[in-house]
Amino acid sequence: MLSALEKANVLTEALPYIQKFAGKTIVIKYGGHAMVNPELEELVLKDIILMKLVGMNPVIVHGGGPIIDKWLEKVDIKARFVNGLRITDEATMEVVEMVLVGKVNKGIVNLINRFGGKAVGLCGKDGNLVIAEKKQVTVKNQAGEETFQDLGLVGEVVKVNPEIIQKLTEEGYIPVVSPVGVSSGGETLNINADYVAGALGGALKAHKLVLLTDVEGIYLGEGRESLASRLTASEIPRLIQEGVIKGGMIPKVESCLAALEKGVENVHIVDGRKPHSMLLEIFTNEGIGTMVVKG
Amino acid sequence: MLSALEKANVLTEALPYIQKFAGKTIVIKYGGHAMVNPELEELVLKDIILMKLVGMNPVIVHGGGPIIDKWLEKVDIKARFVNGLRITDEATMEVVEMVLVGKVNKGIVNLINRFGGKAVGLCGKDGNLVIAEKKQVTVKNQAGEETFQDLGLVGEVVKVNPEIIQKLTEEGYIPVVSPVGVSSGGETLNINADYVAGALGGALKAHKLVLLTDVEGIYLGEGRESLASRLTASEIPRLIQEGVIKGGMIPKVESCLAALEKGVENVHIVDGRKPHSMLLEIFTNEGIGTMVVKG
Amino acid sequence: MLSALEKANVLTEALPYIQKFAGKTIVIKYGGHAMVNPELEELVLKDIILMKLVGMNPVIVHGGGPIIDKWLEKVDIKARFVNGLRITDEATMEVVEMVLVGKVNKGIVNLINRFGGKAVGLCGKDGNLVIAEKKQVTVKNQAGEETFQDLGLVGEVVKVNPEIIQKLTEEGYIPVVSPVGVSSGGETLNINADYVAGALGGALKAHKLVLLTDVEGIYLGEGRESLASRLTASEIPRLIQEGVIKGGMIPKVESCLAALEKGVENVHIVDGRKPHSMLLEIFTNEGIGTMVVKG
Amino acid sequence: MLSALEKANVLTEALPYIQKFAGKTIVIKYGGHAMVNPELEELVLKDIILMKLVGMNPVIVHGGGPIIDKWLEKVDIKARFVNGLRITDEATMEVVEMVLVGKVNKGIVNLINRFGGKAVGLCGKDGNLVIAEKKQVTVKNQAGEETFQDLGLVGEVVKVNPEIIQKLTEEGYIPVVSPVGVSSGGETLNINADYVAGALGGALKAHKLVLLTDVEGIYLGEGRESLASRLTASEIPRLIQEGVIKGGMIPKVESCLAALEKGVENVHIVDGRKPHSMLLEIFTNEGIGTMVVKG
Amino acid sequence: MLSALEKANVLTEALPYIQKFAGKTIVIKYGGHAMVNPELEELVLKDIILMKLVGMNPVIVHGGGPIIDKWLEKVDIKARFVNGLRITDEATMEVVEMVLVGKVNKGIVNLINRFGGKAVGLCGKDGNLVIAEKKQVTVKNQAGEETFQDLGLVGEVVKVNPEIIQKLTEEGYIPVVSPVGVSSGGETLNINADYVAGALGGALKAHKLVLLTDVEGIYLGEGRESLASRLTASEIPRLIQEGVIKGGMIPKVESCLAALEKGVENVHIVDGRKPHSMLLEIFTNEGIGTMVVKG
Amino acid sequence: MLSALEKANVLTEALPYIQKFAGKTIVIKYGGHAMVNPELEELVLKDIILMKLVGMNPVIVHGGGPIIDKWLEKVDIKARFVNGLRITDEATMEVVEMVLVGKVNKGIVNLINRFGGKAVGLCGKDGNLVIAEKKQVTVKNQAGEETFQDLGLVGEVVKVNPEIIQKLTEEGYIPVVSPVGVSSGGETLNINADYVAGALGGALKAHKLVLLTDVEGIYLGEGRESLASRLTASEIPRLIQEGVIKGGMIPKVESCLAALEKGVENVHIVDGRKPHSMLLEIFTNEGIGTMVVKG
Repeated sequence: MLSALEKANVLTEALPYIQKFAGKTIVIKYGGHAMVNPELEELVLKDIILMKLVGMNPVIVHGGGPIIDKWLEKVDIKARFVNGLRITDEATMEVVEMVLVGKVNKGIVNLINRFGGKAVGLCGKDGNLVIAEKKQVTVKNQAGEETFQDLGLVGEVVKVNPEIIQKLTEEGYIPVVSPVGVSSGGETLNINADYVAGALGGALKAHKLVLLTDVEGIYLGEGRESLASRLTASEIPRLIQEGVIKGGMIPKVESCLAALEKGVENVHIVDGRKPHSMLLEIFTNEGIGTMVVKG
Repeated sequence: MLSALEKANVLTEALPYIQKFAGKTIVIKYGGHAMVNPELEELVLKDIILMKLVGMNPVIVHGGGPIIDKWLEKVDIKARFVNGLRITDEATMEVVEMVLVGKVNKGIVNLINRFGGKAVGLCGKDGNLVIAEKKQVTVKNQAGEETFQDLGLVGEVVKVNPEIIQKLTEEGYIPVVSPVGVSSGGETLNINADYVAGALGGALKAHKLVLLTDVEGIYLGEGRESLASRLTASEIPRLIQEGVIKGGMIPKVESCLAALEKGVENVHIVDGRKPHSMLLEIFTNEGIGTMVVKG
Repeated sequence: MLSALEKANVLTEALPYIQKFAGKTIVIKYGGHAMVNPELEELVLKDIILMKLVGMNPVIVHGGGPIIDKWLEKVDIKARFVNGLRITDEATMEVVEMVLVGKVNKGIVNLINRFGGKAVGLCGKDGNLVIAEKKQVTVKNQAGEETFQDLGLVGEVVKVNPEIIQKLTEEGYIPVVSPVGVSSGGETLNINADYVAGALGGALKAHKLVLLTDVEGIYLGEGRESLASRLTASEIPRLIQEGVIKGGMIPKVESCLAALEKGVENVHIVDGRKPHSMLLEIFTNEGIGTMVVKG
Repeated sequence: MLSALEKANVLTEALPYIQKFAGKTIVIKYGGHAMVNPELEELVLKDIILMKLVGMNPVIVHGGGPIIDKWLEKVDIKARFVNGLRITDEATMEVVEMVLVGKVNKGIVNLINRFGGKAVGLCGKDGNLVIAEKKQVTVKNQAGEETFQDLGLVGEVVKVNPEIIQKLTEEGYIPVVSPVGVSSGGETLNINADYVAGALGGALKAHKLVLLTDVEGIYLGEGRESLASRLTASEIPRLIQEGVIKGGMIPKVESCLAALEKGVENVHIVDGRKPHSMLLEIFTNEGIGTMVVKG
Repeated sequence: MLSALEKANVLTEALPYIQKFAGKTIVIKYGGHAMVNPELEELVLKDIILMKLVGMNPVIVHGGGPIIDKWLEKVDIKARFVNGLRITDEATMEVVEMVLVGKVNKGIVNLINRFGGKAVGLCGKDGNLVIAEKKQVTVKNQAGEETFQDLGLVGEVVKVNPEIIQKLTEEGYIPVVSPVGVSSGGETLNINADYVAGALGGALKAHKLVLLTDVEGIYLGEGRESLASRLTASEIPRLIQEGVIKGGMIPKVESCLAALEKGVENVHIVDGRKPHSMLLEIFTNEGIGTMVVKG
Repeated sequence: MLSALEKANVLTEALPYIQKFAGKTIVIKYGGHAMVNPELEELVLKDIILMKLVGMNPVIVHGGGPIIDKWLEKVDIKARFVNGLRITDEATMEVVEMVLVGKVNKGIVNLINRFGGKAVGLCGKDGNLVIAEKKQVTVKNQAGEETFQDLGLVGEVVKVNPEIIQKLTEEGYIPVVSPVGVSSGGETLNINADYVAGALGGALKAHKLVLLTDVEGIYLGEGRESLASRLTASEIPRLIQEGVIKGGMIPKVESCLAALEKGVENVHIVDGRKPHSMLLEIFTNEGIGTMVVKG
């Protein structure tokens, strides 16, 4: 059991951070283990309520891959791939939207409300939040020629209309956003949640983008102690070139850089598998994951 | 083709109604043919945008029966009935919520936005909008004794928290509400859309509740000309007793009376199968359906 | 009698215009037949109330020639002309002001209020609305020399202080303005109503200036079908040069151009002799008169 | 020439009154010599501007008898009397309105603006300010029977809608009101200015009603020193009964009592023939006229 | 060193309290060791800044006995006592005010500002915050008769004008109040700081009054574990009667009851000698001192 | 005794000045005889209340030399000088702060409140109002070399944070400021009151800085009639060079120029020994002291 002084020290260490982040917008990409495991889910959502209570403006963007797969199977829709890329036809999109917007999103909203927060669920259609267009992909065919590959209803963000989020935030709500966009022609498009989170962060001039992932952060070498606590955006390209950052971490890190360019101040890669990791990353001196800052 | 004067007369006839209804809340129960038929759907939603533009505050509550049935079939869920009452188990509720909230609701939102309005979709969980509890039903068993029949996740409204609708309305949005409630324990409950519309109307102190149905209104006799244009709440019980109002119209009429008691000023039963029926009911002298007023 | 659908079509045709003009200021020069004929007067004023109700901000500038003449005669003031120009001496100005401000203006205010609007009458003195100075006119004498001709108390607008109109408009009133200005020295000056309307339009950054006249609009040739529905400002000089626009239409058209230069978006020349002409010009696709737009 | 100290004493004597009356509404009945004599007029209007500047909210109600008579004569309208009561027919009313609203009112507005204030002229029609009805008068005929005598378009106040005055006052304007009312049927009615001032005072919950008259105040005996500086409403009936207050002063005093009953705090009878009499009455200890207070 | 999870648990335990106390006013009586010891002083003031940052509205009332004594000695003022009661003459009051208002108060303000807060110092004279009157004391003389004993310039609170504190609080400042009042006649009066804190708490409808003292709280028996964590106001009289609460604790407890009667929700007696005691009392489940609640 | 007309003339002469200065900030350096003499003090403070009441925003900066000297003597602190410059050590600073902030300031606040105003006392620490740094002084030693002379805790203004004054002013309070600043490191520093007044005037974009002094103003020659009523800043250097302005007036005049450069519109040097001198300077045509204007 902690002594009174130990407890007090934790509270007072958090003080300058609470002061610094008051009134700031924090976009949280919520996915992976932290979403699948009910105990972790409860901890994450309660931590987000805490952030709201101490004056920050958290905005949640959620994923939902595993639950989508389960429901696609239920309605006998088979995954189709061309050159290793998944094709999203209309029947698939219908299920994706119903699962993300009608099930996953409202489940999160429901939990936040039960834990004492005030959440409202949104998708990219509400208030025209996320305007997208079909993603253009080119692949090489067997003859080695570049050809256009239609992935179907997969989109990329063209424009964010953040008013609805700003109004809800001002009124004390925590917005929960499904990564489903709409084209100017009214078509529903499936978009990568990391990308939606980054685009929202930029449009909201967010102070932080937090990626709750299933890794501990960025390692600069071997072993636990080589985990980088803080990196500057300009260091990243060299680290990639030198092979320090490699493999599956490269796209994550590139997505961080993109968000920083759009106007987000800091991006945090945080391990969603550890209890309260986001809270500790934000409110303690040493943090727990990797923060990438502008510059 | 209409003459200039004929056109002008229509516009000026609408004047006193626009003046009268400016700033008033109108809850619209949207269902039946008007929702299934794409041409009618477009007309209804554009008419709602018009109402918003001329200063009224429309709030939509939608149904969705036929589409739910289609999806229950897709995932091989069979309807179960006990003593003629449908049982909503958890698997059924999961599909109902996904279809209403993730498909039907966002489809309406999308269309309103494409037609130039600004819509936001909500369910009873968003901002704790509709708090419900399981509906208590008693049935007679074969021995003629009254026993309690569990219908599963079917709810009735306990409390409406209208703040989220009021805020969105003030900011210029048209709220679109799915009839899905949440219990104080966090359970998702399926609720009759007419009932949700009436409860929202009462909580919002709505000026009007408009039921877009598949009938022309209330008939007081045989033949087209016996359609009642205006009834007073106090006349209804006698009309039922005398057999003038009968059959399937009785529950609809009783639901009107309930809404009037909760604080709604007028209830309109309007034929959703006719183009622009709601607009004509509200903005012309003779109307097109039946208006039931307090008193 | 119109069918329900025909009525509905008129209402819905007006929708995009109501949306487009909401919150916009419309300055209406009200004069000619539409002011003399009580039936037309009622229609015009009710149409203006409708415009206010659907969110536009109409501002009325009225004329009053015929009634002024009647009263000048009553008090035995003879019209005096020098070189064909009317001289406004002090005695004349006294009658002009009393008739415009004390009779015509308040008559319009009274009617608007009786028809359900909220009007307030103003002249250029109220809140220093219209600061003017004596109009300088030069004429040729018999020797062919240019000499200055004093017209007396005839003014041109020097400065508009639109605050009083903006405040009244925000509070829901329809301002009704008499074309009487005041010089910096406190002299009352008679000003052409078209010119006052244009100056107010510019100062208010009005979306539209509507001139209710006794002509149908601008004709580009012979016959009813040559009436121009829409002209661009830059086309006008050529049309005058080619003699297409000619005679009494030239000063009207030049006054349109002046208003567009001062910042008004569109000017409409509308036939005040036809019932509801302004309403039809603004809220229907084909319009009824001639719209001149910037560019 | 005054010494610095004498000047300073005057300024500081005014201090507690300025403090006491800040934000209070003062309705001023402006008529008599103070309106006819240009030097007095300038002094009165500048004093009213001063009152506005130091935080009070003056509202002016003006009369205009002598100027009306001049114009009735100009247009050959003869005064008609029945049993000693003046009959106001339509032709007379037309001239009365034009003179009061179009000439006298705007003259006052113009002067206030020239002296550095911001005035707006109103009559009872503007914003439905003064709703009136025809005054019912009964007279005795030669047979001694009471019969109804129609005075024509003479009105008494039925209802005041003070919103337009409150809005203008909040925006820094000095409202100037002509005593012309409008019936619910839209008829223009001539009303006694004292009565309009009292009714406005009551509707505005005015702190003071100041009657600028051609007498020095109420005398309780013979000689200058018997002028009452302060009376309580309850003393008045006895003073009338005892013949102390008599003759033409009786109706004035009764009109004071009526205003106090409607909610005005104090009524001041002030001699408009003396320069700055209103200023001295309000801002000095001893005053200059007679103040009648509630109680 | 604490584990990540231990730290996180402390933060999340504080969550419901932060939520509960957001926007609530907390009046803190600051005195004793916590004021004399610079390390404790820094901890207390930083904890108050934390409370402000997480949304509470702390208001500080400070004491200052030891520093006053030091300065009285410096200027050779001897303490005078009559029947054991200290007499505050004018010379003493002068020093008391200078020390409390000019030294102690501004020292606290200065530290809060240096630690990142925004403080403003006030005494009872600022904005007429604390209106007091001379305290009436009766003592028995040697003959056993009750006689009035003049204590000089010792006051008790008559009226609190809390506007200045409310305005400063709304603007983000932490008000720091010296316990010096002013009589209606303008005399400076010395008032007990506990009493001022209670009176401010009542006038501000404070949620909490925290007394930072040099005791651990209220003991119900012998030994550390008999410290009461929570008492109800109605229990207190019995505990005093039974001798459980005794000695110097009686006046403190009676002052708690007085504050609860004036409208404060809870009073906390907290040991100012322990680091962060106030923070732990407010933000942890078990607390650290004694909370007395209404009821 | 003044006649009614004489009184009225004084009031109306003040009118254009009240209009001109409404809403303007006036910083008043209050010191000298006007502070020592109770009769003058009452007159000055009541005049400041009058200025507040008629819409100006007075801000008082007070001095306090004589009272400080009395208290330094009481606690046996001897004045120390090096090369003719007074040294302010910590013991001195402690007394200076207590006297200015805890005695002089609150005495002024108390009097203003008793006279019907609403005052709040501040020092440079409150809301970080005046950030200062130690004043750097160089002197020549006996060898004629320039050496740095430490004056101790004497400061000069580095930055003014005027928010606290602006907020209090908006809420209707009269801020009373002691000339005590705080360094970025938290040290208390004694600052010249004229300099604080000038710096506040600049930071507040004050319309006027009024220096209440013990001289009548600036003389341009010999004799009472050579007192300059109005000077332009650009004239001053020449007047100094020509020896017209000389001796002790030079630093005062230079301090005026500095304030004008910082953004104050006018500086007034006014004789605080004459009753109501500030009021007469501001509200009469001829003034009583010397006004220095920009240019």
